[in-house]
Amino acid sequence: MNKNHFCIIMAGGIGSRFWPLSRSRKPKQFLDILGTGRTLLQQTFDRLRKVIPVGNILIVTNEDYDDLVRKQLPEISSNQVLLEPMRRNTAPCIAYANYKIHLINPEAKILVAPSDHIILKEQDFLDVVIKGLDFVTANDCLLTLGIQPNRPETGYGYIQINGDKTRIELNKSFRQVKTFTEKPDLNMAQVFIQSGDFFWNSGMFFWSLSTIMKAFNNYLPDIDQLFSEGAAFYNTDREGEFISKVYPNCKNISIDYGIMEKAENVFVLCSDFGWSDLGTWGSLYDSMCKDEDNNSVTGSNVFTYNSQNCLINLPDNKLAVIQGLDDFIVVESDNILLICRKQDEQKIKSYVNDVRLDKGEEFI
Amino acid sequence: MNKNHFCIIMAGGIGSRFWPLSRSRKPKQFLDILGTGRTLLQQTFDRLRKVIPVGNILIVTNEDYDDLVRKQLPEISSNQVLLEPMRRNTAPCIAYANYKIHLINPEAKILVAPSDHIILKEQDFLDVVIKGLDFVTANDCLLTLGIQPNRPETGYGYIQINGDKTRIELNKSFRQVKTFTEKPDLNMAQVFIQSGDFFWNSGMFFWSLSTIMKAFNNYLPDIDQLFSEGAAFYNTDREGEFISKVYPNCKNISIDYGIMEKAENVFVLCSDFGWSDLGTWGSLYDSMCKDEDNNSVTGSNVFTYNSQNCLINLPDNKLAVIQGLDDFIVVESDNILLICRKQDEQKIKSYVNDVRLDKGEEFI
Repeated sequence: MNKNHFCIIMAGGIGSRFWPLSRSRKPKQFLDILGTGRTLLQQTFDRLRKVIPVGNILIVTNEDYDDLVRKQLPEISSNQVLLEPMRRNTAPCIAYANYKIHLINPEAKILVAPSDHIILKEQDFLDVVIKGLDFVTANDCLLTLGIQPNRPETGYGYIQINGDKTRIELNKSFRQVKTFTEKPDLNMAQVFIQSGDFFWNSGMFFWSLSTIMKAFNNYLPDIDQLFSEGAAFYNTDREGEFISKVYPNCKNISIDYGIMEKAENVFVLCSDFGWSDLGTWGSLYDSMCKDEDNNSVTGSNVFTYNSQNCLINLPDNKLAVIQGLDDFIVVESDNILLICRKQDEQKIKSYVNDVRLDKGEEFI
Repeated sequence: MNKNHFCIIMAGGIGSRFWPLSRSRKPKQFLDILGTGRTLLQQTFDRLRKVIPVGNILIVTNEDYDDLVRKQLPEISSNQVLLEPMRRNTAPCIAYANYKIHLINPEAKILVAPSDHIILKEQDFLDVVIKGLDFVTANDCLLTLGIQPNRPETGYGYIQINGDKTRIELNKSFRQVKTFTEKPDLNMAQVFIQSGDFFWNSGMFFWSLSTIMKAFNNYLPDIDQLFSEGAAFYNTDREGEFISKVYPNCKNISIDYGIMEKAENVFVLCSDFGWSDLGTWGSLYDSMCKDEDNNSVTGSNVFTYNSQNCLINLPDNKLAVIQGLDDFIVVESDNILLICRKQDEQKIKSYVNDVRLDKGEEFI
């Protein structure tokens, strides 16, 4: 393994779309949501340690989840866990990681990866990781990872490539980025697919440390300035104290919006390795094994009758008889039961808000 | 109150139709199934103690439920709880009660009542009780309580009256019984309703002790013989020992089949006091308050959306978001969840049987 290869795993999300399975005190990335025996964070770590030295894998998370990370990833040291005192989106935490890594290895080439996605074709993915790290080693570019779309998904952002040929695109896999788009409506998504110039935005990035630090200096100089003042504290006992002072002063901004959409030297590596961001119950359902009635059932004591196309996720100690449901989500976690039509899952967010308004944070 | 008035409350049923709310270790009669704060047994007791001396109210139940009865009815003494070592239907337990009562008061006039029905118009019912006890005081007759039907219900048995006038029917309320019928199909039930000669069989009976003992002697002499041998043991420390020897030798037979359908002097008191046997989820739903969407919701943390005509019964500590269900039963009790279309509730019995076959008795 290349000692210059680093990875930042972003594990601070609250996964509110998977309520009640995912709760604010134990979000999606910390759950074994597919029932494989390893949580999504653990799966991400297991995958990446095959190509990146374990000591070079950093986890960024909210300070509330420190214990969860340490328990789920006993292989890493406390200095590898970057604790955010509050949510400030992706740009600040990447700036923070950059300055920490800079003191360890200024030659670092970095992969930034979410902790809560699934990847079905692991070897294809690992090949892509090496390819991406090699690309940013050879080129002073910001590289994003695009996924070959297989359907007009409205739940993802898209990356449009530049139709014009460029020097680097002789390679074919690496294309210059024209724009990043928000989640489209169905009509627009269909146009995207037909054009052939659009790829799903996986939220994964590659860059050399020097390139991304230059980009912060250019496009987010205020954030860069804040973290640049901590050189004496990173990787010491006083790091946490420094961070708790800096974070409240950071603006809340994503790396996509703050840098990727503004920089000139942005490329996309287009690939296909069985990826899902598991952002919706529907995508989770799609990723899971189904029984003969097309039900995806988690839980060892579930009896279904005259029920089809359902996603059922119940604790093993819960016995359930479920009859007459078609295309439903049935999830129970702790003391919370959710029954909802799969097609209406986007409404769950407002239901959860009703629960919050009525009952406070207890059930969130 | 008349010291000759007695009541036998039958509380030995296992209420399997209300699984999973009703379980073999805590059947329906021991549950506050309507959410009123009192269990069905307690409601039955509360009602009857208004017209019958508390010391004259006997409870017949399975010995497994001794603790439940004593806990729910602390007002009664242990000698008032008749414990059956095994299920033998209604005739044996009535014979048992008869012999116990005979040693206490041979002049007793007795009401036999189930413990798990609901009665909405209490005063009307209590008036009927007194009327019935007075009738069997004055007449050497077996009296059953018929309910004026308001729909062609297929879940109840019916009592057909004798169209011919008799001496006693000058009273109008008391009619001679022609036949007892099994639960009819819908066509038959409609014919019953149209004829005007059919009443719902409430399973409640009135008789004087002397009349019912004579009837046992005539129609069920073998059962009568068995219990007649216990005169030295009833109301003593050795009663339980005697009963545990006698019961296995009793045949399993209902009072309806063993006596009421055979005896000549059987009358029915026809009335209407808002009665339901709560034998089905549908009848429970009918008896409960509904919200504006026609959902009957038990449980203090239930949020419903786009759901109508559902019976939802969840523990208070369970938070639930339920969306998109129409005409469903959603019940959770202990570690068991049931979701089933209301119209398919007759299938629950076979689902429970599947659970038993696969998991044993743990969840039954």
